[in-house]
Amino acid sequence: MTQSLLLVSNSTNHGEGYLDHCMGEMLDLLGARRRLAFVPFALFDRERYASRARQRFAQEGLEVRAVGVGRDGVSTLEWADAVFVGGGNTFRLLKTLRDADLLSTVRRRVGEGMIYMGASAGANVAGPTIRTTNDMPIVQLESFDALGLVPFQINPHYFDPPPDTTHMGETREQRLLEYLEENDIPVVGLREGSWIRVEHGHARLGGARPARIFRASATPEEREPGAGLSDRDGGRRVAPRKRMTHGGPAATASAARGTSQSR
Amino acid sequence: MTQSLLLVSNSTNHGEGYLDHCMGEMLDLLGARRRLAFVPFALFDRERYASRARQRFAQEGLEVRAVGVGRDGVSTLEWADAVFVGGGNTFRLLKTLRDADLLSTVRRRVGEGMIYMGASAGANVAGPTIRTTNDMPIVQLESFDALGLVPFQINPHYFDPPPDTTHMGETREQRLLEYLEENDIPVVGLREGSWIRVEHGHARLGGARPARIFRASATPEEREPGAGLSDRDGGRRVAPRKRMTHGGPAATASAARGTSQSR
Repeated sequence: MTQSLLLVSNSTNHGEGYLDHCMGEMLDLLGARRRLAFVPFALFDRERYASRARQRFAQEGLEVRAVGVGRDGVSTLEWADAVFVGGGNTFRLLKTLRDADLLSTVRRRVGEGMIYMGASAGANVAGPTIRTTNDMPIVQLESFDALGLVPFQINPHYFDPPPDTTHMGETREQRLLEYLEENDIPVVGLREGSWIRVEHGHARLGGARPARIFRASATPEEREPGAGLSDRDGGRRVAPRKRMTHGGPAATASAARGTSQSR
Repeated sequence: MTQSLLLVSNSTNHGEGYLDHCMGEMLDLLGARRRLAFVPFALFDRERYASRARQRFAQEGLEVRAVGVGRDGVSTLEWADAVFVGGGNTFRLLKTLRDADLLSTVRRRVGEGMIYMGASAGANVAGPTIRTTNDMPIVQLESFDALGLVPFQINPHYFDPPPDTTHMGETREQRLLEYLEENDIPVVGLREGSWIRVEHGHARLGGARPARIFRASATPEEREPGAGLSDRDGGRRVAPRKRMTHGGPAATASAARGTSQSR
């Protein structure tokens, strides 16, 4: 893995400006690179979104071009040193990337060294699928398969349930455990203010808060900023993956926690 | 519309037992009918789920048969006076209904007078699509089209944002306004403890709390329990539907509220 990525939980931290909390990390990863392609597909009003991103990155001396849905999308990605995929609705983002036939171009360019950066929905689509998005499926989407730039799933805006809530809808943790009932791919619950930086084949947590790691065969695990995500450099070893079967280990785990019988 | 339905926001109210808050309404709608088909597809462990439902409805003197994914699913629906579709993950529920080829049977039986009752995910799939679900897309699903028993979308477990939150993920209202950027079908945000009862061609709100109604061409509107959902008997008239166009009325509305630029 020679790819360089920065996958950020949220574009805006409470009380701060757009991208302020992660701009230092973005600039550090970019180094001398100045050509940034911006993907505005996750919001309805792409022009307004692109304008906002252009203004923000201009403050840092970056040259920004918005990726379009036409044939110029490919040439913008060829021109760029780095791409930043903005947040919004993940279904809309992935649908537009697929309809514009840009998924393979992004993958190829990242393989060639173009830096990939994304926040929220833009981080989500870097994983194998968008099956751990928080967003509503507001547009029809035939496949949830995403860019697959990293071998783990992201859950952006991860949050712990408020201790005094009376709301009976599922907690975020319950939703991710349901994901693991059906899938055997690890999930990184990225709390707001946090990110994952991938370089030289290593994924490392950064930002203000620990992440919560979910695997089908293990109890969820907290991991601190600065820690690696791979088994060797982050924490205890995790049991080997097992194929999912109906009523198998994941079902047992969720039954033990009583996660699925409360609705 | 000769169909009878009860669409409930949540299976369990805070501090109460399974279905306690809506059982009186269910029994009132059932009248003398005693044959209930239960659809357990929204949870991973279907047998355990069916057992739980069977126990609960047995307390009310109902005979429950679980709908299976094999050919017996159709015969169970033929036998039943009413169906209750349990909550859980909406994507898993709809996928299993479609894979078991039961969507058309449910539609036909409801048209023939079988009562349809559903909670949470089970209420969601009664609408035209599941595009207003809160659930994670944990399984691949090729189409979000659902039963279409009613002409409006349901958002179960609807909730208002806590006034003091610092969380920057989208509020429920923001997510539904995003839905309306892409779709022109009204949405009923059903708060916990509430339901919609449909009989003799009329849909009426019930339960403990008002619902919030979202339309592409209007400001969201609160409607009290006891009010009807149709334009005539519930509140002010709503502007005629318009086809969505990129940058059209929905875009203007969301831009005016600034809903989409905060990620």
